[in-house]
Formats: sequence, structure tokens, C-alpha cells
Amino acid sequence: MYTPVDKRNAISIDAARKLIVENVSKLTLDTEEINVSDASHRIIAEDVLASHDLPTFRRSGYDGYAMLEEDLHDFPVTLKVVGNIPAGANFDRPLVSGEAVRIMTGGYVPDGADVVVMLETTKMLDDDTLEVSERQKRDNITQIGSFFKQGDTLLAKDTEINPGGMSLLASFDIQKIKVYKKPTIGIITTGSELLQPGDEIVNGKIFNSNGPLIKGLCEENGAEVVGYTQIKDDPQLLKDAIKDLQGKCDVIITDGGVSVGDYDIIADLAKASDKLLFNKLEMRPGSVTTSFIDKGIIYFGLSGNPGACFTGFYLYVEYALRLLQKQQSRLLECQGTLNEEYKKTNMYDRILRGKFKIDADHIEIGRVGGDASDNLNNLQLATALFEIPRGDSITPKGSVLRTWLLPFK
Amino acid sequence: MYTPVDKRNAISIDAARKLIVENVSKLTLDTEEINVSDASHRIIAEDVLASHDLPTFRRSGYDGYAMLEEDLHDFPVTLKVVGNIPAGANFDRPLVSGEAVRIMTGGYVPDGADVVVMLETTKMLDDDTLEVSERQKRDNITQIGSFFKQGDTLLAKDTEINPGGMSLLASFDIQKIKVYKKPTIGIITTGSELLQPGDEIVNGKIFNSNGPLIKGLCEENGAEVVGYTQIKDDPQLLKDAIKDLQGKCDVIITDGGVSVGDYDIIADLAKASDKLLFNKLEMRPGSVTTSFIDKGIIYFGLSGNPGACFTGFYLYVEYALRLLQKQQSRLLECQGTLNEEYKKTNMYDRILRGKFKIDADHIEIGRVGGDASDNLNNLQLATALFEIPRGDSITPKGSVLRTWLLPFK
Repeated sequence: MYTPVDKRNAISIDAARKLIVENVSKLTLDTEEINVSDASHRIIAEDVLASHDLPTFRRSGYDGYAMLEEDLHDFPVTLKVVGNIPAGANFDRPLVSGEAVRIMTGGYVPDGADVVVMLETTKMLDDDTLEVSERQKRDNITQIGSFFKQGDTLLAKDTEINPGGMSLLASFDIQKIKVYKKPTIGIITTGSELLQPGDEIVNGKIFNSNGPLIKGLCEENGAEVVGYTQIKDDPQLLKDAIKDLQGKCDVIITDGGVSVGDYDIIADLAKASDKLLFNKLEMRPGSVTTSFIDKGIIYFGLSGNPGACFTGFYLYVEYALRLLQKQQSRLLECQGTLNEEYKKTNMYDRILRGKFKIDADHIEIGRVGGDASDNLNNLQLATALFEIPRGDSITPKGSVLRTWLLPFK
Repeated sequence: MYTPVDKRNAISIDAARKLIVENVSKLTLDTEEINVSDASHRIIAEDVLASHDLPTFRRSGYDGYAMLEEDLHDFPVTLKVVGNIPAGANFDRPLVSGEAVRIMTGGYVPDGADVVVMLETTKMLDDDTLEVSERQKRDNITQIGSFFKQGDTLLAKDTEINPGGMSLLASFDIQKIKVYKKPTIGIITTGSELLQPGDEIVNGKIFNSNGPLIKGLCEENGAEVVGYTQIKDDPQLLKDAIKDLQGKCDVIITDGGVSVGDYDIIADLAKASDKLLFNKLEMRPGSVTTSFIDKGIIYFGLSGNPGACFTGFYLYVEYALRLLQKQQSRLLECQGTLNEEYKKTNMYDRILRGKFKIDADHIEIGRVGGDASDNLNNLQLATALFEIPRGDSITPKGSVLRTWLLPFK
């Protein structure tokens, strides 16, 4: 009536994640050159160095007058105003003693000048005579190369570029950049119980909710979903679907078909793979979550239960997708304080889908919606995962628990 | 030589944000219907209700056998196995006393049956005779409507849909959804010092880095940049650029041209607007950050200094863009502990661009790169903003400071 899979060796969450780090870190994505304007949250694949100092000229930090330090004694001092340097303008000769020049914030400080006196401490006595009543402690000049020296690393290889980095590249007029290609993903959702959109609801059947979940989460994580299929529980269909994806995917994710009692294609593939990472976890929900690497492709077999699929994605697939892109997980791991007693106990660590609230420097966590692994009523609402340790005692209010804050929530 | 603007009344960060809440909350974006598959992180513009109960049928929580509770006494019990219900299958008659049916996780529990006994506690004595040695405490059946009852709210109006929500909508076969249109943004960067990409570097001129910064941050926040121009310091050019954007933008952001000493187009517009929010802040950098609302358009005048532009965007523009989309800011406000002494003092609260680290339940903050407002060397690296309170005492290591953790970093 069903094919039992081999006895599986359950490992801990941390052991599973350690295996992902060790093995996924060895894989590398191809690179491509793209426009910097399209590079938000892409991962840079080479060190980008400063081709010149920045700033490229001495810049005024304030509106005021540029002048020579040596003239500033025996206040008030009078100087001859010999010009005006608005933003963007050059000044074609050095300033000499007795002269001042009007300058705007960011303006070019002429050679010879070595201090900018703020407008507020000056007064025009006539059209070209300036009186300076005091000087500030600082020279108010931003020196050449004070932000970056030629050869400094602007963005290091394996950095995820954000808008701040785009602005930095723009400030050096760097318009093209080498980045890693987006990881390509194939998703296969399996289950004879799955309807197609538009089908009529009948006893025993449900609409496919995990497919959209996995697809959305992959895309949030910078991946490109290049294959997406839904198949019945049929070993040949699954074999064919996997084969179809192998040529074009960095990661293949199957959903469903990993429980005892289901067919064992995934188990067979895992057994024959270059590197089985895990096929059983000391964790609920999703204890049958499976991962292996074969011929450079990372495979994940997620549970068909929505809650288990969600949890398995965040704890393992997200982690691997980020590592494949040379990045740390975006889940913020921390210690949260439970806001109410949790009664259920389990022989495995239980990961609950919950909500967090930061109040000053305190991270409070609590449940949201149902905690059954087949319940999808909190997948939208959950903003954190947290761990109820295994054992047979209830978890009291105020317990400090391992918590992961979820990104993009 | 310059046109002084009117005396400005500086307000606090909190007062400025309160004015944004009060005024931006009154504005509403148009709506449009889109495919749920394209709805990740869009904002839903109507309550979406459950058209039916979910689950739609009684589902088995385990692999095992469905049977009648009334048969389960005087163990071991023997029952006749009358069928097999794999995932997705119906069963066309009620189960009666003395019968059992093989059932898979998620399978349809036939009428009459009121308990599923897990496979592990059963044994087949012959081809159709089952021995049950015990029963579990629970019935292991997920009841109709236990996730959602017909009429329940699946997603409330003004919810930002995430992949969890997409999976929920898919589970009800909802394929179209009404969302708010993305806020449309016009960006005008001003400054005669700004080069165009590809230009040669000359004294006094710099490449435009704030334009790409603002554009990238707007896009991160779900907005669509429909206008993007760079102009010289020229009142007529600015007037024309603003006029050109007014017909097509929900938000217009200018950058530069808001300091004393610059021309005062923005100040004039602010003065004549329906609602001036602020034109001076008790904050460094970016004290001249300006915002007003006129004819339903939100205007921001950001400082041309990169650090001030960055800070002003996160504290005010992000806040407004999120409010316009009926969402809270994605900046997580909390209390961080400073990891080293900060010596500089200021008459205004100073917002530093820094990094944070969560260690268990402790949030540590520290500086990264330069803190001058014209320095862009930390815009990529900063993951937090934190506030050095105004005053004339230095801020010691260990100070607990108001902190905002930045999103997408």
C-alpha cells in the first residue's frame, strides 16, 4: 500500500544549517555585467576600487568666505572680496594674502585659501570689502581624498548592493558592474489532492497554496523562478519534472511527497546524490524536510503541510539561497521573551510561527493564529519563528526562547 | 548675492513625524485590480472574505486508519478494512461500525468515521483485517472550517500582502485582487555642481549620487519613479521641472537647494502650499529638510548633502511613503547601546549612520565610516540610525540611545 523509506537519521536544526554552510559555500554562481541602475540588491562579484580620490577637490563645508589663515589675527580683519564661487564653479587663480572669495557649501576652495569662515561671522562693509569678526575652530574644508583615496575598496566582492552603494558607485561615475547571476529555481509541487486554479472544489482536494508561497519567498530572496509545475503523486511524473529542471536550475525545490507513506523518489535521489545533507530533522513541523546536493544543484524536499513548508523555507532554503549569493541569512536570530504560556510538549523542538514586538531593548514574542502544521491561517501574519524546546514540561510565560525575526514582513 | 529665506521655525523629529502622520493619513491612493501572482508586497484595498469554510472537508492529520470512536474499547480491536483513501480521493459511502479505511495525511475522512488511528499503533492481520492496539488522545481529524469559517476575513483592507498571504489567497482560488496603485514619485536633483554620467571631472563639480540613492530607496518602498531629472541651480528650471511632475506624481522630492544661501523656490512653494509640515528640523544632519502638501501632492525638499539626504529619506520620506500605502514604517525603532564613546556635541540632536548587532536580547550600536553630512562612505554600510541627544556633554560608551534599524540592509 506504500513504500517505506529507509530509516532516517534525524539531526538538529543547527547541525542541518551547519551542513548547508559547509556545502553550499563551495558553490558559485556565474557572473554577468549589468547597469548599476539595475543593481539594487544584486551581489557584486568583484572588488570595486576608487579610480581617484574623493572628493576630487577641496570643498567648502559651509556658505561663507574662503581666505588665508595667516590673515586671521587682530580681529576684526578686513579683506578684499575678489570673486564669488557658486556651487559647481572653478576659480582660476590662487588666492593671496588680503583676499577673500565668497563660497557656497560644496564649492571649490581655491589654491592658497586654507580656511572657510562662515557667513554668520562676517559683514560686507562695502561692495568688495569684507569684515571678519572671528574664526571658527575648524577650517571647514573637506580635503581631497578624505572620503576615499585612489585604490580604496568602494565595494568589496560579495557585497549586496543597496541604494547607498548605488549612490557611491554613481559618485565615481561607475555605470556597469559585475554581479552574480540570480540563482535559478525550479519548483515542483506534488500531490494528487491538488486542484488547478479554476477547478471545482470536491471532497479530498485542495488548491495548491505552497507553490505560490515558495515562489514568492524565492523571489523575495533574489532568485529567479525558471520552472514551476504541479504534478500528481506519480513517480514517473516527478522523475520527468526533475529531469526537465536539471539543465536550467541552481536549486530544485519539491514540495510534498517526503512523508513516510508517500512514494520515495526524493529519498532515492537523496541516497544516490553527491552529498546528502539531511533527510530528517529533530524539529516540528517539517521533520521530514530533506536536502542534498547533486552535480552542483541544491535540492530541497519540503513538507506539503503549509506550516512545515513555511518553516522549512525560512530555516533552510532561505539560508541556502542567501549563502549561494554569498550573503548571511536575512533572518535576525535573537532571544525573544514569550508573552504567554505554551502548553503543548514534544519530543522534538517545535518551531512556532508567531509575532514579535520590540519595546525599547526588549524583544517580545507571541503566537499568532493556529500552530497546527497544516494550518495556513498565520502565514501572512507571522513575523517571527521561535523555538519551543523539546521535553515534557510546559513552556511558561516569560521564557526566553530562540527566535528568528523574519525579513520583508 | 543670495536671497535669504524667511526665518524658519525648527521643530523636533517627533513633531515632524506627527505632522506627517496627521496629514499624509488623509491622502488615499487610487486602486487597481491585479493578479494575485503579481501582488507580493502590494497593499490590498478591500477586505477579502472567505467564500467558504476551510478546510472544505474533514481532513486526516496523519497516515493511518479512519474508523468509528464507538468501536475503540477492549483493545486489541479488530476491524474490517473496506478501502483506501489516498490523498485527493473521495469515499462514496459512510463508514459503519466494525469498518476501517486506510487514509493518508490530508485525506478525506468519510462520513461516519470520527477518529484516525495512527499507522504505528495498528497491524494488518490479513489482507483486510486490522488490529488496533490503542487509540491516541486526539481524534487526529482537522474539522471543516477550523482554519477559516465562511465570511471570515482572510486579508483585511490595507494589509501588505506577503508570500504567506498569496498562499492564503491561492488556497481559496482567489486569482485577482484590488490593491492600491503604487505611489508615483518625481525626483528632481538640483545643483550646478552636478555632472552628468560620462562627463569629465573638473574642479567644483561632482557626480550626482543623491539621485540614484533616492530612486533606489523609493523603489525599495514600493513606489514607482515616474520622473527623474537633474537640473542646474536655476529657479525657472526648477519651477518647470516641478510643474512637469505635478500632473503625474503623488510625491515630489527635490534634493539640494534648501539651504540658506540657495535660491528659495522650495521655500516659496512651501509658504503658498495647502499645508506646510516643516521647513526646519531640530536635527543634524538635514536641519533644512522641508515638507509640505499641496493639492494632494506630498513634497519633500531633502538636503543635497548625501548623509543628510540619506537620513532625511529614512526618517521622513520612508515614513510618508509607507503611510501613503497605509503601512507603518519598516524602520524598527528600539533602544540601542552605544559601543564606544562619541565626543562631538551639538545644539541639535545628531542622527548618526551606524551599524547594529543583535546579541541575544541586546541591541548594540556603533558608528561606521565618517559622520560628516557630506560623506557618503557609509551609505552602503549603515544598517541603523541612532540619535546623539543635543547638549554639551559627550556621549559615553554604554549610553542607551534611540535607534532605528534600517530595512533591506
